[in-house]
Amino acid sequence: MSYQLWYWPDIPGRGEFVRLALEAAEIDYEDMAREKGAEALVEDMASRTGFKPFAPPYLVVDDGFCIAQTAHILAFLADRHDFGAGELEIDLQLIQLQLDVTDLVAEVHSVHHPVAGALYYQEQMDAAYEAAQHFRDTRIPKFLDHFEQALEVEGGPFVLGDRWTHVDTSLFQVMEGLDYMFPNRMAELDYPRLELVRSAVMEIEGIEAYLASDRRLGFNEDGIFRHYPELDSE
Amino acid sequence: MSYQLWYWPDIPGRGEFVRLALEAAEIDYEDMAREKGAEALVEDMASRTGFKPFAPPYLVVDDGFCIAQTAHILAFLADRHDFGAGELEIDLQLIQLQLDVTDLVAEVHSVHHPVAGALYYQEQMDAAYEAAQHFRDTRIPKFLDHFEQALEVEGGPFVLGDRWTHVDTSLFQVMEGLDYMFPNRMAELDYPRLELVRSAVMEIEGIEAYLASDRRLGFNEDGIFRHYPELDSE
Repeated sequence: MSYQLWYWPDIPGRGEFVRLALEAAEIDYEDMAREKGAEALVEDMASRTGFKPFAPPYLVVDDGFCIAQTAHILAFLADRHDFGAGELEIDLQLIQLQLDVTDLVAEVHSVHHPVAGALYYQEQMDAAYEAAQHFRDTRIPKFLDHFEQALEVEGGPFVLGDRWTHVDTSLFQVMEGLDYMFPNRMAELDYPRLELVRSAVMEIEGIEAYLASDRRLGFNEDGIFRHYPELDSE
Repeated sequence: MSYQLWYWPDIPGRGEFVRLALEAAEIDYEDMAREKGAEALVEDMASRTGFKPFAPPYLVVDDGFCIAQTAHILAFLADRHDFGAGELEIDLQLIQLQLDVTDLVAEVHSVHHPVAGALYYQEQMDAAYEAAQHFRDTRIPKFLDHFEQALEVEGGPFVLGDRWTHVDTSLFQVMEGLDYMFPNRMAELDYPRLELVRSAVMEIEGIEAYLASDRRLGFNEDGIFRHYPELDSE
């Protein structure tokens, strides 16, 4: 079984949350737009019929089935490849946590694009400056307190204890992204369980190989987590 | 089987998407904060342990199981009460559409709160004015084109044809909300399949009774869909 992943080729963005789970589980996939370019992605999106993705990332399965929405793709993969809990109520709670990650990621994007995604950052810097203050002061602690508490439930290092799930690989990326975007603010905060899960994810065999490869994209100022020093604490 | 729904008592907001599915399926539920007030909701949230809701709405099942995130609650209810497709791939595509609705709802809220949810609208009106222009001009058509196309797949009136699902009740609420928030802009647009699904949802027996009852909350300027004339087209 092989998968085709479609996502913008030059940013980690939302696609990276899917990549990390695929790599951790050592599942074969083709990263289509990294091979063929962004235009091929736009063309592929336009050519789809039936219930179509609203936006990338989306994943195409062998039989042509196409699934979109980051948290939804991860829930689908976890079920097929057994990297969830294997118990309905706990799997539902993992998906719920993954949807909380989705909300955080959307808010991160809105920090540098508060007015409109279609405008450049430079066209909405005043609103972004104010949005960043609120995000740093109240939203980062609110989200990270929530995830830190979830990591306490089974004692860590992973959300379910000894076994990694799609939530852990996403929390890794959240911590990496926030550190990239807000190094000063993050240095003021202390989340020992989130640090522990970040290290534990880096030691998953598939992730270790992935992070050392050229498949892993660095953060940059076209992506979701962007480092604009003026948006960080002083 | 009975459910406890927890959501802010004075706005339709995200809770209404859950209510509509419960009412359409004629499932018993207690609307806890409407009986006990917002403080009771805050207390209940704070008292939860284990994997906790990040925010309302959340639903508590007989056995104490608690599930949050609007689209996720709807997927859970559809599975238990058979108002999805009953076929895995199609059910996944319905959840995907429901997650697209979630994204739209988040963007609607960001129109009047572009800078921070914690500030009043009056403190971010300039950014909101600009955000509303972009939302009206490009985001409304982008989302509604997407849903209109999904309604074409099986020929309507519902997404799956003759049988309603949680996506249809949500599309009803989206259309009602957008009409309330942007009456002028919506009058310029023509989405015959979305109009058809809106009428068809209003004829579901449970919905007809609900809309005539005092359980149905009207839109207002504390909610997600808010009518501020300055944010609409002229």
